[in-house]
Amino acid sequence: MEQRTEISQLGEFGLIDHLTKNIEIQNASTIVGVGDDAAVVDHYGKQTVITTDLLIEGIHFDLMYTPLKHLGYKSVVVNLSDIYAMNATPTQITMSLGISNRISVEALDEFYDGVYTACNLYGVDLIGGDTASSQKGFIISVTAIGEVTPGKYVKRTGAKKGDLVCVSGDLGGAYLGLALLEREKKIYLENPNIQPDLENEDYIVARLLKPEARKDIIDFFAANEIIPTSMMDISDGLSSEILHICKQSECGAVLYEEKIPINEQAKQFAYKLELDPTACALSGGEDYELLFTVQQSDYEKLVLNENISVIGYITEPSEGVTINTKGGNKFNITAQGWNAFQS
Amino acid sequence: MEQRTEISQLGEFGLIDHLTKNIEIQNASTIVGVGDDAAVVDHYGKQTVITTDLLIEGIHFDLMYTPLKHLGYKSVVVNLSDIYAMNATPTQITMSLGISNRISVEALDEFYDGVYTACNLYGVDLIGGDTASSQKGFIISVTAIGEVTPGKYVKRTGAKKGDLVCVSGDLGGAYLGLALLEREKKIYLENPNIQPDLENEDYIVARLLKPEARKDIIDFFAANEIIPTSMMDISDGLSSEILHICKQSECGAVLYEEKIPINEQAKQFAYKLELDPTACALSGGEDYELLFTVQQSDYEKLVLNENISVIGYITEPSEGVTINTKGGNKFNITAQGWNAFQS
Repeated sequence: MEQRTEISQLGEFGLIDHLTKNIEIQNASTIVGVGDDAAVVDHYGKQTVITTDLLIEGIHFDLMYTPLKHLGYKSVVVNLSDIYAMNATPTQITMSLGISNRISVEALDEFYDGVYTACNLYGVDLIGGDTASSQKGFIISVTAIGEVTPGKYVKRTGAKKGDLVCVSGDLGGAYLGLALLEREKKIYLENPNIQPDLENEDYIVARLLKPEARKDIIDFFAANEIIPTSMMDISDGLSSEILHICKQSECGAVLYEEKIPINEQAKQFAYKLELDPTACALSGGEDYELLFTVQQSDYEKLVLNENISVIGYITEPSEGVTINTKGGNKFNITAQGWNAFQS
Repeated sequence: MEQRTEISQLGEFGLIDHLTKNIEIQNASTIVGVGDDAAVVDHYGKQTVITTDLLIEGIHFDLMYTPLKHLGYKSVVVNLSDIYAMNATPTQITMSLGISNRISVEALDEFYDGVYTACNLYGVDLIGGDTASSQKGFIISVTAIGEVTPGKYVKRTGAKKGDLVCVSGDLGGAYLGLALLEREKKIYLENPNIQPDLENEDYIVARLLKPEARKDIIDFFAANEIIPTSMMDISDGLSSEILHICKQSECGAVLYEEKIPINEQAKQFAYKLELDPTACALSGGEDYELLFTVQQSDYEKLVLNENISVIGYITEPSEGVTINTKGGNKFNITAQGWNAFQS
């Protein structure tokens, strides 16, 4: 029988001690970590980058098909992704949790196992947080702090006419993973004896449940002296994000459907659901890839990296934000890129 | 009739634009604020201090008697209090909200009115955050960032035998304010025609609903070249906090009941409820005063400040943590200081 320790047995401070007792500080800049009113971080000569995300059960995740370890891992990664999207290196995180009495200490340990796995992999320190009771549902709030050489951070505002529009990795997979898990959940709820059919779908399931942040791309930029003119991470879908870049950079863009990178397994599953894979890439969220623009003169450097696809270019604002389809049509991209493709 | 705009009318990004359109950056170190993946803060030559708090409706606050403007103000202040408790100066905050559809845009405006009032009063910048839907209840997560001259931060670990134990302001008021509002809520729920009786209780109600962080004490330390040997803010009650200091500094302490500062109005209301005012000071939370220790040689400087009370001194760890009562008894202080007084 599995052990179940009620959180009330430990008390708040016992719980915090329990959850943080194995922390090893990784960054010399972490001067004071967990266990005081606040953490102290030294950033002498570096600029500090800060981001925060709030994840709420029933809105952002479904514990019915989300293993807690993956959830802990993802909670960290989605914040680190925002730091990388500034061309910065994450160094610390804080994590606050709202915990209902449904969650046991063992369940929290599993969650933190994922948190620490992500921290170790990406070299960041957990330096503080807060734990609170929640009457309903599990609530996760993470703040990530990173550092960047002064002036080297990349905003969303610098895209210029003629710049190349690029994305890392592939798109749409996380959305299709979600569609798959929601389908299996529905089947299970209707008949609990049917086992979930996830065969050959490990790629899209992993894209949803255990995303990675693109540290490798930031390292590649540094090694090849590339500074993108604008950048952001793709959490809400390519359509939404390219519109953000164009709005904040005051420019237009042309994308090419055939250039949008989509994983083969994701594509096949989209067809199974009678969905357009491109629509999934445009409107599906949570891929945590990077969308960025570079000067044309950086093209020679970029082609070295098979994890980067050039998908279009930046235009005058008056030309709007459009996509040229494989069939030779041209559509305006809207925040609901999906609809554009359904019409 | 009051206007009610549904949040869905604005959309997530419209909402963020709406909520942040009036931000004015106050700190030169704020290089990138709201509106990108992450904020950028320059702390060249300063150390960065970071803290975070999660506030959940039904656990930390009751919207039945908490005006939203006060709640916004308090959400900021309780985090700033943690920064001051490190002997640091807060410079930026991030704020994430989980919002149910019960909350209108007007209600959020009221909340942010309080947020910005606190930001302006304390000179901090709101530099980012996240907004999410919440299926139930209002969720507030704030992270505060501050700066401190390298090496001048004050932890909980430095109290030494012979040091004076001090507190700012007065204690127990917020707890009594809560007791009053809970009583009035109960009366109202039993008979909605009875108006709340808050006459002459404005002090304790304000202590709960609109606390202040002790910036003045940190400024006084700087002006008088005092560096406390240990410090923390009093959010869970004096008993709990002195035990933290003694545990983390590996020392004991003696407190004197007669020296514990309690406001006269708070005292009178405690008697009305047949509560011991000292027990309220020991166990009542949310006063957000500072508890700190200083070397005896700083005593001459401290007496200049009428907002600081010396309430005891630090001893060997073997002597435990005790309180000498007005009646001449000596009790051990426990995290439930209340119980010690009831026995």
